[in-house]
Amino acid sequence: RTLRIGLIPGDGIGHEVIPAGRRVLEAIASSFNLQFSFVDLPAGYKTFQQTSVALPDKTVETLKKECNGALFGAVSSPTTKVAGYSSPIVALRKKLDLYANVRPVKTTLSSKAPIDLVIVRENTEDLYVKEERTFEAPYGPGKVAEAIKRISERASFRIASMAGNIALQRQKIRETGVQSVHSKPLVTITHKSNVLSQTDGLFRETCRSALSDPKFQSVGVEEQIVDSMVYKLFRQPSSYDVIVAPNLYGDILSDGAAALVGSLGLVPSANVGDAFAIGEPCHGSAPDIMGKGIANPIATIRSTALMLEFMGHEEAAAKIHAAVDGNLDEGKLLTPDMGGKAGTEEVVEDVLRRL
Amino acid sequence: RTLRIGLIPGDGIGHEVIPAGRRVLEAIASSFNLQFSFVDLPAGYKTFQQTSVALPDKTVETLKKECNGALFGAVSSPTTKVAGYSSPIVALRKKLDLYANVRPVKTTLSSKAPIDLVIVRENTEDLYVKEERTFEAPYGPGKVAEAIKRISERASFRIASMAGNIALQRQKIRETGVQSVHSKPLVTITHKSNVLSQTDGLFRETCRSALSDPKFQSVGVEEQIVDSMVYKLFRQPSSYDVIVAPNLYGDILSDGAAALVGSLGLVPSANVGDAFAIGEPCHGSAPDIMGKGIANPIATIRSTALMLEFMGHEEAAAKIHAAVDGNLDEGKLLTPDMGGKAGTEEVVEDVLRRL
Ligand SMILES: CC(C)[C@H](C(=O)O)[C@@H](O)C(=O)O
Ligand SMILES: CC(C)[C@H](C(=O)O)[C@@H](O)C(=O)O
Repeated sequence: RTLRIGLIPGDGIGHEVIPAGRRVLEAIASSFNLQFSFVDLPAGYKTFQQTSVALPDKTVETLKKECNGALFGAVSSPTTKVAGYSSPIVALRKKLDLYANVRPVKTTLSSKAPIDLVIVRENTEDLYVKEERTFEAPYGPGKVAEAIKRISERASFRIASMAGNIALQRQKIRETGVQSVHSKPLVTITHKSNVLSQTDGLFRETCRSALSDPKFQSVGVEEQIVDSMVYKLFRQPSSYDVIVAPNLYGDILSDGAAALVGSLGLVPSANVGDAFAIGEPCHGSAPDIMGKGIANPIATIRSTALMLEFMGHEEAAAKIHAAVDGNLDEGKLLTPDMGGKAGTEEVVEDVLRRL
Repeated sequence: RTLRIGLIPGDGIGHEVIPAGRRVLEAIASSFNLQFSFVDLPAGYKTFQQTSVALPDKTVETLKKECNGALFGAVSSPTTKVAGYSSPIVALRKKLDLYANVRPVKTTLSSKAPIDLVIVRENTEDLYVKEERTFEAPYGPGKVAEAIKRISERASFRIASMAGNIALQRQKIRETGVQSVHSKPLVTITHKSNVLSQTDGLFRETCRSALSDPKFQSVGVEEQIVDSMVYKLFRQPSSYDVIVAPNLYGDILSDGAAALVGSLGLVPSANVGDAFAIGEPCHGSAPDIMGKGIANPIATIRSTALMLEFMGHEEAAAKIHAAVDGNLDEGKLLTPDMGGKAGTEEVVEDVLRRL
């Protein structure tokens, strides 16, 4: 069976890194008895400027009907307000019900402050429901705008269960002898229920209840208020294994964690639903380096591996991660964000050689 | 004229650090021709357990009618949901219209990565309006909770103006010859308008408009999306001078910035309105070290100085900061959070000696 992969480069360096994902898939296919076919799909700000739609229906339909997985690059946001423009990745997550955004952040074990954590971010609700309104202030001149933050028991339960399962799976891998900073699985629930007692309170309680399932008996559960979580993430990052968070806190925490490993250009993610996964590098469209051929392809290559994991091809995924680890451990061919001098192409070639 | 200062220790180590603020004020009074009197005021979770009110009306009334300024320690949050409990500091900020939360984060210049920034956090709205509701999910079993995030043009305008004024004032101090990592004033607006186009869009536009006033002509203005702000804060903290943010992002960013200077126990804040200021250390009630006599008093001592600044006593404030700088530069008497072995009392005595 051929696996059909949607390629959505988006804007900016999306066009420079997504091809790296494709080449890696092509390179590993035969060793794992896999076959891939690809379809290019438009989305992004440029698409919006050309067609006044940032996420064409056709892109969504093709993903739903034809594809087994997808890779998404990055999109640019307009720098001033543009009527009708709305982020295509946020829409895509909702339309395909990709309810989890899984973001592993990891250094090599030899690093001074080894980190090996994964942020499991709820991906469909919170302030990302984007229900906003603007009105004249009742007390006099000036506008007021309001947005809804929505937290549901259903979404909180399934994201916490996903976090618990990921914690168990990570433990299983450790038990095969893989070295790690962790000896026990741990899920840390992030919230701000000291202020938002109903919404974040519901998130906290629902996570606790999902994780009290006997199958998670071996998983430690603790919680951190989001501000304190950011503080602790920076002070003692090796303490964290799996962090589960509502959408917006997850967004913020994952950029914070990326800073700890040295570059956003290293951090992958997967948008995961029950039947579909989209790999997506955590970095943005980076207009400042666009077209220079120096974008770091590693976040995309690892996102490709993550997508494969969620498609059930763990061995192929492990092979890709090992090739990337090899490149990083040697440290000879690195892009400028990592302090190196290599271009995108050289890094991709180096990773391909190691596959 | 005697300045009357409300002392609200709150819970936990609040009771150990607030006395440090009082002693510092007593110690500097005569050199600056000032007189202080103090009034102890209850608030916090313990107060709630005793009286079922976390912020007694009497505390608010006394602050409004009798006091010229106040110091607030910290409050504990219940670890499970407790009906009727609501954070007293959040309420106090609103009741006294203390619309700005000013949080300077600074290392000494000799530090490897010198940081000298101030976070100017809107303090009255955003998700902190705490308008929440919970209902049964329309699609089936389970609850849904919603909270309102409210952003007004009025509050955004005044917080941006405050940020602009602080940027100008910092520049004025630099022009007296004080060394700094900055050569020009800069305000960085933090938001997430790529997702929240109306609410955070209004914040962004209103900040831009407030800062386009000719009096801020010399102030550079730039913006950062909040996730990217956290990333950049950690990667290049010395680039930031004044950061202005809506309430929740400001809360998160200030804990992040605190991690950069080594301890939350160093970071002060002031809750500032047009006519009143409450100094408040950024750390919490720290139940884990409560009663051990090792809480770091420096955040409170600097918060006391900040309160004085906003009361118009800049010289007295500068004297206090200089005494704290002396203690830190010498580095002999430090509390355990700073890697030292000194207790609260010894640090306070050392600072008092330097006044
Ligand atoms: C581009 C933006 C809408 C997006 C988000 O906030 O989710 C990005 O920051 C991310 O983390 O994938
Ligand atoms: C205790 C809590 C309500 C408070 C806040 O979120 O404002 C605290 O984190 C702070 O930063 O002062």
